[in-house]
Amino acid sequence: MEQLLQIPVHEATLRISKIQSLMKNEGIDAILISDNANKFYTSGRVYNGYTYIPTQGNAIYFVRRPVELEGEGLEYIRKPENIAEILIQKGLPMPSSLGLELDLAPYSAVQRITKIFPEAKICNASGIMRQARAIKTDYEIELIKTSGAKHTETYSQIPNIYHPNMTDLEFQVEIERISRLEGCLGQFRISGDSMEIYMGNVICGENADAPSPYDFAMGGAGIHPSLPVGCNGTTIISGMAIMVDVNGNYTGYTTDMSRVFSVGALDELSIKAHQCSRRICQELSAMGKPGVEAKSLYEKAIEIVTEEGLEHLFMGHRQKAGFIGHGVGIEINETPVIAPRSRDILSVGNIIALEPKFVIPGIGAVGIENTYIVTENGMECVTLAPEEIISLH
Amino acid sequence: MEQLLQIPVHEATLRISKIQSLMKNEGIDAILISDNANKFYTSGRVYNGYTYIPTQGNAIYFVRRPVELEGEGLEYIRKPENIAEILIQKGLPMPSSLGLELDLAPYSAVQRITKIFPEAKICNASGIMRQARAIKTDYEIELIKTSGAKHTETYSQIPNIYHPNMTDLEFQVEIERISRLEGCLGQFRISGDSMEIYMGNVICGENADAPSPYDFAMGGAGIHPSLPVGCNGTTIISGMAIMVDVNGNYTGYTTDMSRVFSVGALDELSIKAHQCSRRICQELSAMGKPGVEAKSLYEKAIEIVTEEGLEHLFMGHRQKAGFIGHGVGIEINETPVIAPRSRDILSVGNIIALEPKFVIPGIGAVGIENTYIVTENGMECVTLAPEEIISLH
Repeated sequence: MEQLLQIPVHEATLRISKIQSLMKNEGIDAILISDNANKFYTSGRVYNGYTYIPTQGNAIYFVRRPVELEGEGLEYIRKPENIAEILIQKGLPMPSSLGLELDLAPYSAVQRITKIFPEAKICNASGIMRQARAIKTDYEIELIKTSGAKHTETYSQIPNIYHPNMTDLEFQVEIERISRLEGCLGQFRISGDSMEIYMGNVICGENADAPSPYDFAMGGAGIHPSLPVGCNGTTIISGMAIMVDVNGNYTGYTTDMSRVFSVGALDELSIKAHQCSRRICQELSAMGKPGVEAKSLYEKAIEIVTEEGLEHLFMGHRQKAGFIGHGVGIEINETPVIAPRSRDILSVGNIIALEPKFVIPGIGAVGIENTYIVTENGMECVTLAPEEIISLH
Repeated sequence: MEQLLQIPVHEATLRISKIQSLMKNEGIDAILISDNANKFYTSGRVYNGYTYIPTQGNAIYFVRRPVELEGEGLEYIRKPENIAEILIQKGLPMPSSLGLELDLAPYSAVQRITKIFPEAKICNASGIMRQARAIKTDYEIELIKTSGAKHTETYSQIPNIYHPNMTDLEFQVEIERISRLEGCLGQFRISGDSMEIYMGNVICGENADAPSPYDFAMGGAGIHPSLPVGCNGTTIISGMAIMVDVNGNYTGYTTDMSRVFSVGALDELSIKAHQCSRRICQELSAMGKPGVEAKSLYEKAIEIVTEEGLEHLFMGHRQKAGFIGHGVGIEINETPVIAPRSRDILSVGNIIALEPKFVIPGIGAVGIENTYIVTENGMECVTLAPEEIISLH
């Protein structure tokens, strides 16, 4: 028998109580969670089933699979209809308002749940779950720090795998290998269907300017139109910028980090833009304190690139991204979002990836990406690989 | 400028007309597609936007990103609300019934589309899209064959990467590397949220019997509870069965193939079960002709394992899978499904993975998985790696 909870009981209780206080604000009686990332948040494991959270009291974990778990609050079910039956058996009240993840759950699945709770008013709990997860607990911050340290260790090995006449794909495959051997789970957990990617992104040369369908800051054409992102088989040559943005999911919590490599020296413009990116990260991370508006970080970045005359290359060239940073955690696209119309306000415990990048046509993408913890004194970086452009030979 | 369509125009037309004839049967005026796999099916590329298919005439591709595409039927939009505006500008009728992918599209997204077409009756188009995609065109079959050939080539290299005292994770990472260098896209495209996986699955020893939350035939505990599937760090030792079930997505179309490796000889029971799996594949692939009920293949498999006294180990031991095969194509979980209550009837052009596997407690998983094309004369195998248990040294 294996324990249901894969996080300490007090940690699960803390997370559930954060969700409950947000539920009270919105007058929701109960939430029924079906999204894998949210189930992982409430239990420390992914399982087939639902987490049921009433406004008061303990969560109930309705599990279909895996078999043979044990633990407080565990109830095995065959189908979602069993949930109402079990609540009745336990003498628990039926919720008069029920929160579901309406931004994520398929329409048909929501309809099925609605029939199980015919008296309940259905509300959207997606925002509550995003809000709860945006402020990490100390336990989660430790997992982020562990991911950051392993991610940094992996990046330190990248120069060893380069050999002349490599393609960007071959370079990426060797980075994937060292990441996986270092313990990277590989999987990029992303909320919704706006992004798909394999292990990460290595882009160099002209490919940096290829427009992508996805919500990534930098795209790349990819090697196939069914997954049009990332490396495209370009042979790495002298004078190209090689942007490495590979997955830091070592603990179920992801860090996001990008670094630039080159064979031989880069041109002046690329070096200038790269230094500008480092300056932006430095100034923004000093600014990023509790109470600060996320959009003010975006505005500051635009101010800096405009001052340096680099705005036409900032965050893309043929196609531009609409943000310079984003929350990370269990998923790669959490809140707060650092974008011009973001309404997010920074709080202690936010984890934010800043990625002020530039596309230099013909050369590649330059700039850095780091993951930071928002603290009382500003943003503390957890992705500590050297930020300079690293020469490969 | 890049062409919108990444498949020949006549191929796109053929696929659209297949969807249109299914729409006519169900009395649906138009379908609006938002799922990436279905957009790839209708255009040969993934893009941010929608494919709009009226019952008659050409499809319209409403694209948000990437920028700079060109081609017949392309319309750029900023937001879904533009779709209705453009239909009106073009003098096209508003649909009185509109099919959406209700089994896949999030509830909130469906609500938003519903507001754009306030007069339309909303219908579920998920079934139509599944049905259209279940019968592959000749063009798709060629892509499946190409994936199968590359998949087979990758598997032929597996014995070269083994070295003594390797863990299952290290073994898997080296298989991932050779797959990727052979052109595997890595990404496992899966419909819905019932499964998550990285590149594939290598399971050996006791780990084969670990219950998984996912709809995979064999699970494995995984290396982390956020992705509880696959290898778990077991050191490979003599006498263990090593089941390799790694992703065959080389063309946007996936083949599914599993093979068993061992260090030294396996015990009699494992060898017997492995031979039984091969017998099942042989008998079922001969039976699998157009008009045959999918469930009859399942029943035949159960008949064989019962005759051989192996039913207690078939398709899992502590936890059992409820199917022995499934359609594959753009995604890994297409129709037809080879399961006891399946209502699917086989047709020419179905692509089916059969995976009659056994868990031998303490030893590992044995059996094979192959991908087949349903033809008039039975099922033609496209995953041609040797089926015997392959010895590693």
